[in-house]
This record gives sequence, structure tokens and C-alpha cells, in this order.
Amino acid sequence: MSDNQLDKKSQAWSALFSEPMSELVKRYTASVFFDQRLWRADISGSLAHAEMLAAQGILSAEDLTSIEKGMTQITEDIEAGRFEWKLDLEDVHLNIEARLTQLVGDAGKRLHTGRSRNDQVATDVRLWLRDEIDAIQGLLQALQLALVDVAEKNAEVILPGFTHLQVAQPVSFGHHLLAYVEMFSRDAERLADVRKRVNRLPLGAAALAGTSYPLDRERVALTLAMDGVCQNSLDAVSDRDFAIEFTAAASLVMIHISRLSEELILWMSQSFGFIDLADRFCTGSSIMPQKKNPDVPELARGKTGRVVGHLMGLITLMKGQPLAYNKDNQEDKEPLFDTVDTLKDTLRIFAELAGGITVKPEAMERAALKGYATATDLADYLTKKGLPFRDAHEVVAHAVKTAIGKGVDLSQLSLPELQAFNPAIEADVFEVLSLRGSLNARNILGGTAPAQVRAQVARHRARLAG
Amino acid sequence: MSDNQLDKKSQAWSALFSEPMSELVKRYTASVFFDQRLWRADISGSLAHAEMLAAQGILSAEDLTSIEKGMTQITEDIEAGRFEWKLDLEDVHLNIEARLTQLVGDAGKRLHTGRSRNDQVATDVRLWLRDEIDAIQGLLQALQLALVDVAEKNAEVILPGFTHLQVAQPVSFGHHLLAYVEMFSRDAERLADVRKRVNRLPLGAAALAGTSYPLDRERVALTLAMDGVCQNSLDAVSDRDFAIEFTAAASLVMIHISRLSEELILWMSQSFGFIDLADRFCTGSSIMPQKKNPDVPELARGKTGRVVGHLMGLITLMKGQPLAYNKDNQEDKEPLFDTVDTLKDTLRIFAELAGGITVKPEAMERAALKGYATATDLADYLTKKGLPFRDAHEVVAHAVKTAIGKGVDLSQLSLPELQAFNPAIEADVFEVLSLRGSLNARNILGGTAPAQVRAQVARHRARLAG
Amino acid sequence: MSDNQLDKKSQAWSALFSEPMSELVKRYTASVFFDQRLWRADISGSLAHAEMLAAQGILSAEDLTSIEKGMTQITEDIEAGRFEWKLDLEDVHLNIEARLTQLVGDAGKRLHTGRSRNDQVATDVRLWLRDEIDAIQGLLQALQLALVDVAEKNAEVILPGFTHLQVAQPVSFGHHLLAYVEMFSRDAERLADVRKRVNRLPLGAAALAGTSYPLDRERVALTLAMDGVCQNSLDAVSDRDFAIEFTAAASLVMIHISRLSEELILWMSQSFGFIDLADRFCTGSSIMPQKKNPDVPELARGKTGRVVGHLMGLITLMKGQPLAYNKDNQEDKEPLFDTVDTLKDTLRIFAELAGGITVKPEAMERAALKGYATATDLADYLTKKGLPFRDAHEVVAHAVKTAIGKGVDLSQLSLPELQAFNPAIEADVFEVLSLRGSLNARNILGGTAPAQVRAQVARHRARLAG
Amino acid sequence: MSDNQLDKKSQAWSALFSEPMSELVKRYTASVFFDQRLWRADISGSLAHAEMLAAQGILSAEDLTSIEKGMTQITEDIEAGRFEWKLDLEDVHLNIEARLTQLVGDAGKRLHTGRSRNDQVATDVRLWLRDEIDAIQGLLQALQLALVDVAEKNAEVILPGFTHLQVAQPVSFGHHLLAYVEMFSRDAERLADVRKRVNRLPLGAAALAGTSYPLDRERVALTLAMDGVCQNSLDAVSDRDFAIEFTAAASLVMIHISRLSEELILWMSQSFGFIDLADRFCTGSSIMPQKKNPDVPELARGKTGRVVGHLMGLITLMKGQPLAYNKDNQEDKEPLFDTVDTLKDTLRIFAELAGGITVKPEAMERAALKGYATATDLADYLTKKGLPFRDAHEVVAHAVKTAIGKGVDLSQLSLPELQAFNPAIEADVFEVLSLRGSLNARNILGGTAPAQVRAQVARHRARLAG
Repeated sequence: MSDNQLDKKSQAWSALFSEPMSELVKRYTASVFFDQRLWRADISGSLAHAEMLAAQGILSAEDLTSIEKGMTQITEDIEAGRFEWKLDLEDVHLNIEARLTQLVGDAGKRLHTGRSRNDQVATDVRLWLRDEIDAIQGLLQALQLALVDVAEKNAEVILPGFTHLQVAQPVSFGHHLLAYVEMFSRDAERLADVRKRVNRLPLGAAALAGTSYPLDRERVALTLAMDGVCQNSLDAVSDRDFAIEFTAAASLVMIHISRLSEELILWMSQSFGFIDLADRFCTGSSIMPQKKNPDVPELARGKTGRVVGHLMGLITLMKGQPLAYNKDNQEDKEPLFDTVDTLKDTLRIFAELAGGITVKPEAMERAALKGYATATDLADYLTKKGLPFRDAHEVVAHAVKTAIGKGVDLSQLSLPELQAFNPAIEADVFEVLSLRGSLNARNILGGTAPAQVRAQVARHRARLAG
Repeated sequence: MSDNQLDKKSQAWSALFSEPMSELVKRYTASVFFDQRLWRADISGSLAHAEMLAAQGILSAEDLTSIEKGMTQITEDIEAGRFEWKLDLEDVHLNIEARLTQLVGDAGKRLHTGRSRNDQVATDVRLWLRDEIDAIQGLLQALQLALVDVAEKNAEVILPGFTHLQVAQPVSFGHHLLAYVEMFSRDAERLADVRKRVNRLPLGAAALAGTSYPLDRERVALTLAMDGVCQNSLDAVSDRDFAIEFTAAASLVMIHISRLSEELILWMSQSFGFIDLADRFCTGSSIMPQKKNPDVPELARGKTGRVVGHLMGLITLMKGQPLAYNKDNQEDKEPLFDTVDTLKDTLRIFAELAGGITVKPEAMERAALKGYATATDLADYLTKKGLPFRDAHEVVAHAVKTAIGKGVDLSQLSLPELQAFNPAIEADVFEVLSLRGSLNARNILGGTAPAQVRAQVARHRARLAG
Repeated sequence: MSDNQLDKKSQAWSALFSEPMSELVKRYTASVFFDQRLWRADISGSLAHAEMLAAQGILSAEDLTSIEKGMTQITEDIEAGRFEWKLDLEDVHLNIEARLTQLVGDAGKRLHTGRSRNDQVATDVRLWLRDEIDAIQGLLQALQLALVDVAEKNAEVILPGFTHLQVAQPVSFGHHLLAYVEMFSRDAERLADVRKRVNRLPLGAAALAGTSYPLDRERVALTLAMDGVCQNSLDAVSDRDFAIEFTAAASLVMIHISRLSEELILWMSQSFGFIDLADRFCTGSSIMPQKKNPDVPELARGKTGRVVGHLMGLITLMKGQPLAYNKDNQEDKEPLFDTVDTLKDTLRIFAELAGGITVKPEAMERAALKGYATATDLADYLTKKGLPFRDAHEVVAHAVKTAIGKGVDLSQLSLPELQAFNPAIEADVFEVLSLRGSLNARNILGGTAPAQVRAQVARHRARLAG
Repeated sequence: MSDNQLDKKSQAWSALFSEPMSELVKRYTASVFFDQRLWRADISGSLAHAEMLAAQGILSAEDLTSIEKGMTQITEDIEAGRFEWKLDLEDVHLNIEARLTQLVGDAGKRLHTGRSRNDQVATDVRLWLRDEIDAIQGLLQALQLALVDVAEKNAEVILPGFTHLQVAQPVSFGHHLLAYVEMFSRDAERLADVRKRVNRLPLGAAALAGTSYPLDRERVALTLAMDGVCQNSLDAVSDRDFAIEFTAAASLVMIHISRLSEELILWMSQSFGFIDLADRFCTGSSIMPQKKNPDVPELARGKTGRVVGHLMGLITLMKGQPLAYNKDNQEDKEPLFDTVDTLKDTLRIFAELAGGITVKPEAMERAALKGYATATDLADYLTKKGLPFRDAHEVVAHAVKTAIGKGVDLSQLSLPELQAFNPAIEADVFEVLSLRGSLNARNILGGTAPAQVRAQVARHRARLAG
């Protein structure tokens, strides 16, 4: 046989409908032009479902074989770009099922036994997203490794550490980059947590209430390598927490990228001049012949807005929706797809970019000398001589004021000049007043001393190899 | 004809660059695949610029003629789908300019005199958006007219007016629909205000500082029917207020759509049963044969999230950007484009949908009788008899309590029963206790009495014809 | 000695400043009026720091004793409402430290050795938030238990399950409530994941670079029951991921609350009439004497916006910030505080509210009979008789159409009438056409059959007791 | 004097309620602790309403006199801090009305005739917001004037203009500041547009449907100096567009503030060193004695998040709400109040801050010399000699490359060296290669030439005086 019910949809949805969908509505409600990217997950899910139906005796072995054969054919067609996606068939699910029925007849129609598009689409999106999270984890790891490499090479390079963008204390450039490794490692942790909640099986919830067929849902979960089964059918078809949670985690990744970008842009501006980015990451200007612009970090900083916008869009989408499935939920896909694409492209390009950074240590050190970066060291020195910290702080403020007046650094004041501020100061003060001395002194877990930086590099390498 | 510099961009941006852009970066930073939709605005802007250059004696008349001829050719090619968009040429501007130069030689290269892509793209987006706002205004008007039609037909139909989704007072269904006409008319007002700030000319700001060519910017503004010239070059190239302001106005349109959608969905649910939507706006279910779902309002409610997300994305984009143009700004386009598309599609479909509403007056009236909708009328009645409103309110609460106990409406209590609550009650009370009596009584400007509804319908028709 | 430097801040920040802060600036930048709620965490953190300083020999035993004594006094004063918070001292940290120094002299000044306000405030917020997460977990558990109780009592009560707010299939009211238990249990899971990343120690990062004092950071972490130490000082003082991650998790809780609220409001409206809320959760109207409004769920639905707004605010705050600490970060507190307050109040009130729901089973069942809720059961019946599901679906659509025409339910058609649609239909069809039959048939893991509901109730009770 | 119904609310809302509100609910739903700030608007609105009731013969002249006397008393009590706000009375409206009734008896109870809290609160918020917009307009004007002053003084000061934070072209520092004046003037325009839609009268809409009393709504609008009357009662009580529109406009103000803040912070960092901020706007560090931090712009940048968060919160609040008034809407107030407070404080402090900027012209000029800022001028020079612009651009790229190699500026290349790139170069080239020459050359409307800057200053002064 094959009079295919799905093919009649251009006339009317079912016998209940007195007119076909208007063309405008068809375009407005169709998702096939964006959800077709779920095809592989859709087929995997269908095969796992069919295999279970057969195991449970709901589907015959012949039907299963037909379905598998049909799906192989469809897979090849899609991969070869030969598959014809039809707007009239609304979405990826009906397109594939209609084609399957065309290829294998009634077996194709039997595939939908005990399931609905509501649980099917939820399953597809979860399967797809789980795999994308795995891909993103790989990219996050590559980016961390790239940063660890640069950090290791620059453990001894002195950068002015800023707070409030004012020179604060000298820090190791390697240490500075490792701050971003911390952020990206938290992102990886977070995504691993999200994955647990993504990788659960809605299939078997059917439209909303479960099904009267004796499905073995845990078998399907196992086949699809999912961590478990959604325990409530109404929740299973209407839950989009996982999409929001993923997009929130993605927003944090992008916030980290935006901060790193901001710094790369600052560092590459002529006023800082701390680094150069390789030409292949820059563009020129159509009017100003001298320009070399850090387009990649700028654009990445901008793309933060895009991902944050998707998060806000998804939250708005779900607010106040009654149970169970509503058509609103179809709007979960495009933001999710674009979030994944943006994240993957950005991480990939940043891993490359890290290797294209040329460091200018002299410029960094020169800048560190401009802002009395070792003033705290002098206060600490005095504290170790017995002054309460708060008093030492005030003594040093006076010293800095004097040095500013003279246009010199603290280390350029003479010993008698320094002693005028406090008699406890001795000749050994000059050690603590040097940038290098200051850097090395912060040899505490998490501190900026190069020894600590190297220890962290080793820790990260071990972690990332794991 | 000379060798075309733009064609070399695949090798290196300019002599200053030692390597070509990486393929990954090229894809990441290119905008041509989405900004090509600005082509018509780009060409208009270029022609206005060229015409002015010629008028100012900066460009020869021959060059102007060549440019005009070239642009005619390009317009035809794009319209015919023959134009070849190249990723290597980054964006719509360079694609068109490179092709122009190919067609007309040095004249094409001279077009870029006194301008930069920074002011060019800002001009293009503004021109494009201005025209889209005009299109949206047309759609908003059509939607208002469609709602006014339905409102007029249903001026006398009684709906339970809700507050807190509890039956409050009877209202005219026409009056209820006119509430949405108010909202959409405010949207139209708001967009007219936004248009003033969109329709200003950045061209002439060049890269950021203005230009040394004696351009006549006001002439260009006039040619392009713009309302004025951006008065500060740095602001001109970096301002994206207009995009945010437009998207905020669009978000409000979508919020109104989401509220109307929520109500259509409620009204069409079996528990309310107030309306039906024409089949052509509904879909069925792949599993439940009896279903007819209000897909269009659901999807529209969902698409609110999309537009709100774009607003949040654009705000995030601009937060904290230093002057002047930064590459981040390229990210303004996709959210803006999608906002316009979503808005236009949604307004168009709702104007159609309005005509597809079947009203079920009996169900509405039946529902209005369920919630003691005329209790306020009884309180007002007592107040007119001299009771302070607060006391009358309490008397009626007692009467309602009794009626609930008996399972009847207030109008079904006997006169003696009513008088037991307050002796001032007389036989004329039953007029105010009827739904129709209550409705007609609210004959105040903005009130729900059918006479008022018809007056508002007339006002709206006059306004929309204007 | 004890001339207290902190007391001079009203004159000038330090010797470096030539004028005092303007009054306007003082008010604009001060945080003491909102961050004083961190006082307990601030004191705990200080005591753990002091104890470690003493253990490391940086602080004398006498000084430690003095500090402990002083802090005891301060704790008592704050608890008694006697502590005088001063705007001039900016924030909770300086207020407490200044008072400590007043009480115990130089020992107080020595407390700040090896730390900065940058790592101190990050520690305080994390300690405070960790404890609040624990409190929220308790409230989430109470809410889940309350819902499980109602679910258990209503396992057999039949509600029309909706998709698209159209009657879909009969579901157990208990099953429906358990969908929310799933959501809140995911929230609890998610908050447990967030807690891991909150409960890490920044202290020891000092201003941004670590310190030259030989602090034992892991000892402090242990004292404070934290899960570990922040491994990079720059990241430690500037990271606010934990605040964003928490607020994102809180937004999801509120989205769940908003969905439950939407349903409670719908169910309580006269058109549904499925439930009543106890009077103590409702308010009346100042004008309409008959009104009883579900204020609590409405307000809770509204408060979703508040928490989502805080999420957006925090994201905007962090976007594009260069390392390390910037004053912007002070803006993390109020949104975080308000998010915690809103969440706690809302969860507490919903746990109470659950017990105040009166269920109206007849109204629910009546509504379920209105929408051909067992149509899918008929299709399944036919499929079991051998029809492909897609064909059975179409047969049933015809049957529903006929039933609508006659104004009857499917179960009210006669056997011959049903057989006209398909001869395979036999007398046993009427079992599957009853609501109860449909309900019981969905006896699959996660399905709506009362047996499954009771199994889930048991699972949840075990889980929540754990 | 009569027994006051409002005082019984602690027992039960009305006779319909069988139990009092739970204490938890009372706290959760009460608004009096934040909405009391509407008191002045509430009283104005009540007086206008009462005056109209009397004019229409609905209220006696004696009652009006009593109400006016009572309100005078209440005004004095509130101003003196003597008014006792009661949680039991929920909100500002009931608190004032209950006190009025206590003071003047039944006349107080009659005040509520023909109105509801639904239209009352909408009126109060609009009146309050209108006045706040006027206050904000004053502050925006002051800020613009302060910036215009600094701009005028610095019309001739040369700053490196940046695109992509790379040196682009020399600009006047005055010109740069005027870019912000443009932004704030757009903000003022926008707020004037918003005001039109805020300043409309909902009163007379009563609960949702209008009233049966013959109110003269236009008289009330006139008394309150409102621009018109809301034309649809359902819309009048449920519309919160004005709050969203205002908050969107406020977000744009804050985005502009965030951009200016970003630049102030950059300029004050030692690497730029372009400006100093007066000490009274800065704070020090508790650990680093040398620090002077630009707290005000940092905090203002951070507060952008706060206002944007409120916008998102309000949008989320309104999404999908059915008509008419729902309790959700009570959540409009706190975000609106905080937005107004933040905006006013920030604008006030920035107007002060502008006067506290010390400009360092040498540092700016030195920085402008670092980035081949006049390269475009050389290209323009060649274009004027007849080269197509695109070719001139490439010639100059070569020249810049050579200059970089030699470590000199373009102006330091000799004439023969320059001629080697293109023989058309003559001795007059050195004029265009100077920063001052470049600046003066951009003498076009909106351009950076000091003459243009002065013209703009004059235009702004005239505009702001208007």
C-alpha cells in the first residue's frame, strides 16, 4: 500500500479541518528550514524507538528491518544533499517520516506508534545539544591549552596589574592569562553539570500523558547513551530548562570572552602597546591606510550581546506558559542553534588567536613603572617592621605624594628620603621596591609569583590531559 | 581601466599586512551574507553621494554618469539574482563597489571620496530601517482596521470583563478589542517618533572626524528624503540608539501581540469557548485526532521572546563601548533584520486572523452570568441612594455571599431578599442587576457602553483614514 | 597607640588626596546601607583570617584574643541593633574594622594584614550566598513535599490534560502536580551544582596579586567550611560568575513558579472552576464587592520579571570588564540580595499555598469530557487491531467530526455508528473511550496512570527524606 | 462619624472572606512600604477627582470642603513624618483614604465614588512619573551645559580619535565631548516623546469598564495638567507601556553614561594619561597606598546593568498578561522608582564631574603622534592630485610601512622619501601631515575642525537656553 496521509496535509490537516492552512500561516509556523539540522538526532531517536518497539513485540522484525533500510537510504540522501525538504510537511519529523513511508510503506507509518511529535522533538533537541556540548567541551579544552602555553612562556614577564584600570601591583603576564583559564575551566565544569540535565529521555511521554503501549523507555535511553528517563510525561514534553540552562552557561562563556577581548583591544591600542595580534586576525580600513584593527576580539565582544539576547529570549518564551506543550516552544530552536554556532566559532577562533599574540615585555614593564606599583610592598615592609598595617598605609601615601612631586618612582627616592617618612626603613627596602622583587614576593597559593604560575601551569596541564 | 585594489584583499588587506586573513577569520568577520539585504539602500546612498560630489565639483560629470550607469546595471543584476556576492569582499559595500569599479573603472574608485564604510553603513541601515518602519506602519494600520471592523460588529456582544482573570463586570466584546486598537495606535505613534531619529544622515562623517572635501551634506540628506544631518561626526559613526529605540518599540508591539494571543488562546480553549479561529490558522496533532490548535497566536506569543532577546542583545552590544566606531557594531544587523521580519510577518498574519474569528456570544454571556458581574452595579445603586460607597460595598458582599450559598445570581434573589440587606433597595434594582443594564450604564468617555464603543469606532476610522 | 586612620576618611582618603569626597559622591558610592547585611559573614571571615594569621605567627596570640573579644562585642551590638553604621566609612568592612580598632586598638589595625577589601568582599558575598542557598534548598524541599502531598491525595482525580490549552487527553491531577515537583527537583539539583562554585575561598588574593605574607589559605577555607581555594588571585577578586549562575538558577525557579501560577489563576477562574484557593491567600476589590482574587500567584508571576531583570542586570554589569577588580562590581549586591529575598518569600508562600488548594474533581472531569479527550485511545485501539497509526488517526478524525456534528462525546456514539468508521471496532471499544480507562491505560514509566503517580510519589518521598 | 470598613481589613477583606489574610501573604502582597512615595500624586489625583465630583453634583460642596481639609491635614502629617503607614492597609491609597475617613467621616468614604484602585494607581504612577521626567530633563540639560563648557574650552585641544581603539585621526577634544552632548540631547528628545504618552489620564476607567457616574474626565485631566484622557477603560487600567517606554529611554541614557564612563576610565589610566578627575570623585584603596580610583564612572558604568535589568524585568512582567488589571502589575513600581533614582543621581553627579576634569593636552597630542593619524590626509592629498582614492590608499599604506620600519612618523619622512611612493607629492604635503593641519582641514558640518566645534557649541547653547 501507500496512500500517504502525510501527503494530504497541503489540503487539510485532517478530516476535521474544513480548509487548508493559509500559505502565510504555513510559512509562519513551519520549522523545517531551521529544524532540519536535527535530522541526524531525529533518525537516531527513531531507530532506537523502532528497535525497542520490535523488542517489545509491538513492531514486527520485518517492519524494523524495513525502517532501518529506509533510514539508511534517507541518511545517504541527506548527506548527499539529495533529500527534498518540503515546507508542506512542516518540520524535520514529518519530512523524514513521510519519505520513510514513501520508501517502505506501512512500516513507516507504524514507526510513530506510542510517540508524538511533542516527545520526539524534545528528544531530538536533547540528543543534538548533548553532542554539541561535547564538541564545545573539546573547543574549551583547546582554548585553555592554548592559553596555558602562552602563560607558561610568559611566567616571568611583568605586566602592571590593574584595579579600576589604575596601576595596582606588578603581576606576571602568565598569571594574568591563567585567570582566563580559571574562567574557562569553570565554564567546562558548568557545561558538564548542564549536560547531566540535557541528557535525559523524554521519548515515551507521547503527546503529554504517556502511552498505552508497553514501551521500554529505559532501553531506549540506554541505546541512545542517555543518563536517564524523564520521570513525568507532562514535564517531559514541556520542559525547556535545559535550553535555558545551556544558554546561561554559554552567556557566561561569552562574558569571559568579552573580558578577554576588552583586554586584548586595550593592550593592542597604541597607548598601551603591550601586544600585537597577528595580521591574519586583523583588518584594515577602507579610508585610513595606516589601520590594523583587532576585529576578532571586537566582534567577539559584540557577539556576547547575541548570546545574552538568546538567553533573555528563551526566558521570555517560557515565562507563564501553562502545561503541557504549547506551540510557543517551537521558538526554542533558532536561539539555541545560533548560540551553539556562535560559541563554537568564537572558541575555535580564540584558540587560534592565542597563538597569534606577540608579547612586548618592555612596554609592559615600562607601564608598570608608571604607577607606584610597589607601594603596597613598602607598606607590607613597614608592617613587618611592626607598624599596624593601617598606619603603614598612611606613611606610604605620604611617600608616594612626595615621589609624584619629584616625578620619580619610589625606588628612585634615596634611603634618607625614605627614612624621613619612617625611621624603620633600612637599605633592604630597595629589594621590595623593585617590580621583580614585588612579583616574587607574592609566592602564595594563587599568587602571582612565577613559581606559583608554573605550579598552576602544571596543574592545568594535568587536569586538561585527564 | 586600472587594476582593482579591492580584488587583492584575498592576499592581504593592504601593503601593511604581512599575511592574508585566515579563512576562519574571514568567515567570522564577514557580513556579506546578511548585510546584502541593504543593497538597495547602499546604492541609493552612493548615488546621492555621487550626485553631490559632482555638484560640488569633486567628481566630474562623466564619472557621475559612469557611476549611475554602473549602478543601474548592478541593480538589474541583483534584482535578477545574477549578482555574485563574494565572501572575500566582506560586506555589501565592498561587493558593490568592487563590481562598480569592474564595470566603470576609475570612476568607481572615485565614489568612495570623502566617505568611509563607517558612515556608509550607518547611512544604509538608517535608510533601510526608515523604509521598513513605513512598511510596518502600513501593517499596523491594517491590523487596527481589521480589529475595528470586528469591534464594530460586536459592540453589543457581552463578554465577562476580567480582572485577576476573575469575572469582574460585563464589557462589550467590541470594547475589549478596541483596547488592543489603543495599544497598536500607541505603537504607531511611538514608531513615528522613532522614525524622526532614524531618518538622519551620518554620511559626511567619514571614518570618524569628517572629511577635508567640501561635501554638501544637507544636499545629500535632501536627496535621500532624510529629516536632517547628524551634527557630530564621532557620534554619527558610532550611534546605534536608533536600532535600540526601534527594537524597544518593536518589543512593545510584540508584548501587545502576546497579550492578544494569550486571550485568543484562552477564549478558544474549551473551558472558555468564547471564539473559534478559522481552520486555516490552526494545526492538528500527529497523535491526537481531535485536536485543532491555535498555532498562530501561540507562536506569536513565543516570538515575543525573540524580539525582546534582540533588544537585550543590542543593549549589551553598546554598553561600555568607547568612541568611535568599533567592529562590535557589525552585530547590530542580524537582530535588527530579524526584528523587522518577525514584526512584519506577525502583524500581517494578525490582520488576517482578526477576520477569521468566530464569536460565540451565548458562551460569553453565560460566562458573564457566573461571577456576580453586576455586584458593583448594586453597590453603585446603593451609593446613589445615599450610602457611602465603602458601606454599600460591604452590603453587597453580604448579598453575594447569600447568593453563592443559594447557587443563584444576584438578579435571581427576590426583592424582599435583597431588601433584607438594605431597605433602600427598590424594584428598579433589577434593571441595574442585568448584564445589559450594567453595560449600558457605563456610558462615559472610554467606558464600555455600546454607544461609547461606536463613538470610538468612528474616531478610530477617522484617525486611520487620515 | 590609637589614632584611627579610618576615622579621618571624612577629610581625605589618604595623604594623596587634596580634598574630601564630595557628599554626593559619598552617597553615590557608599554601600553600607545595603551591604551591612553581610556583617555576619564579614565577621566569620575576619575571625578565620585572624586565627590563621596567629597560627602562621603573623599575629600574636594576644592580638588574636583581642580581635575575638572585639568581634564578640560587635556581634552583640549588631544583633541588639546598637551598632552605629556610618556612611563615612563606606561599607560593612570599614565600619566593622573601625569599630574593632576603637574597641581593641592596634590589634584591630593588624587584622587587615595580607588581605584587601577586594578579596574580603568576595569572600563575604560567597559565604553569605552559600548559607542562603542552603536555606533555599530547605524551602524547595518543603514546597516539593507540599506538592507531593496534594498529588498523592489526587492521584485518581481526572483533569483534562491540555496541549495548546486545548483538551488533549485525560491526566491525573496528581500527575500534573508532580510535573512541578520534577521542575523544583531540577532546581534543587542545579542549586547544588551552583553551590560548589560559590563555596570557594578568594581570601588570600589580597588586592589582586596575592600577598607577601605566608598565609595558609587552605586552613582558612577549612575553618569556613569552604570546598576549596580560588586558584588565581586576579580571578578571585574579579569573578562574579557565581552571582550570575545563582541568579540564572533563581530565574528558572521563578519561571517554574510563573507556570504554576498561570495554571492556578486559570484553574481558579470561573470558566475553568477547577480549584479554589483559601481565602487567606486572596484579596478582594475596593470597588467590586463580589471579587476574590488570586493575588499570590499573580504577584509571584509578576516577580519572575524582577528576578530575570536582576539576571540581565548582572550580565550587563560584567560584560566587557577588564581585570581585575573594578568598582562596577559593587553593583552585584542589591540584585543578589533581592533575588534571594524574592526567592525565599515566594517559595515559603507557595509551600503554604499548596495546602490551601481545594480541588473540584467534578468540574475537572466535566471539562475533560468536553474535548474528545479519548480520541487518541480510539486511534491506539485501531492500531492494535492492525491499522498503521497514521491511518487510524484519520479514521478517528472522521469519527470526531461526526460526534461534533451530533453534539455528543465519542463514547456516546453507538457501536454500529463507530463501526461505520472502521469494521475492526468491537464492543470492547467503550472501555478505552472512558476517561478512567484512558487514564489507567497510560501505565508506563512517567505516564499518567494512578499506579505510576503513586510510584512517583513514593520515589519523591524517599528522595526528599534522603 | 461612621464605623470604618477599611479598618476591619485585618479581620477579613469583606463579608465574602471566611478568614483574614495570612501574615505572610500580607507582607508578600503589600506595597505600602514602597508605594508611599506616590502620596503626593495620590492626593493631587484625589483632589482633582473630588473637585470634579462636586462640579458634577455627585458630591456635595460640604463633602468637598471636608475632603480638602482632610487632605491638607494629611499632607502636613506626611511632610512632617507624622503619618502612620499601616501594613494592614496594603497600599498608599487605602492608607490615605482610611486616614481621611478617620478625619472627615463619610465624606472620605464618598471620595472613592466612580473610581477604583485600578485607575487610581495608574493615575498616580503617571502623575508621579511625569514630574520625574521633568526633573530628569532639568538634569540632562545641566549635564549638557557642563559638557558644552568643557568642550568650548577644549575646542583646540588635539586628541587621537580612535576607531577600534586604534589611533585613527586627530580630533578636537571639544568635538569628542560634543558627541556626548548629541547623545544626551537625543535622550531629552526621546523623554519628551515618552512624556506625551505618560501624561494621559486613566481615572474614570474605574475597575475596568468605566463607571455609571456621570464623571467629567476631561475636567480632571485639565486640573491635573494632563495632555488627554485614556480612551479605553480596559486599556487604561492595564497599560504599562509608559513604564516600559520610559525605562527603555532611561536605559539609553545609561548606555551613553556607560560609554562616557568607559572613556573617562581609559583616559585616566596611566597608559593613556589624558585626564585627571578631581580627588573628590575618587577613592583610594585599603591596601594600595598609591591608588586614586575613578569610582564614580566605574559605578555609573555598573549601574547601567541595574537600569537595563529593570527594563527586562518590566517587559517580562507584561508579556502574555490577559486584560484587564492583574496583580502582577504591582511589580511595576520598584523597578520604575529605582530607575528614576539611579538616573537622577547619576546625571547630577556627572554634571558635577564634568567640571572636575583636568585635561592634559600634551599627553593627548603625544598619543596622537603615535599612530600615523594623518595617513588619511596623505591619501586625500593624493586624491586631490588625481589618484583614485583606492589607489591613494594603497600608496599611503606603503609609506606607513616604511615609516614604521624607520620608527618615525609620516611627517618625519623627507620629501624625496615621500616622493618615492608617488611623484605627485610636493612640499605642501607637510601641511596636511601635521595634526593641526589635519584637524583644521575637517571643516565640514559635523566635522572636527575647531571652527565647527565652536559653531556647534553656539548651536547647543541656543538650544539649551530655549
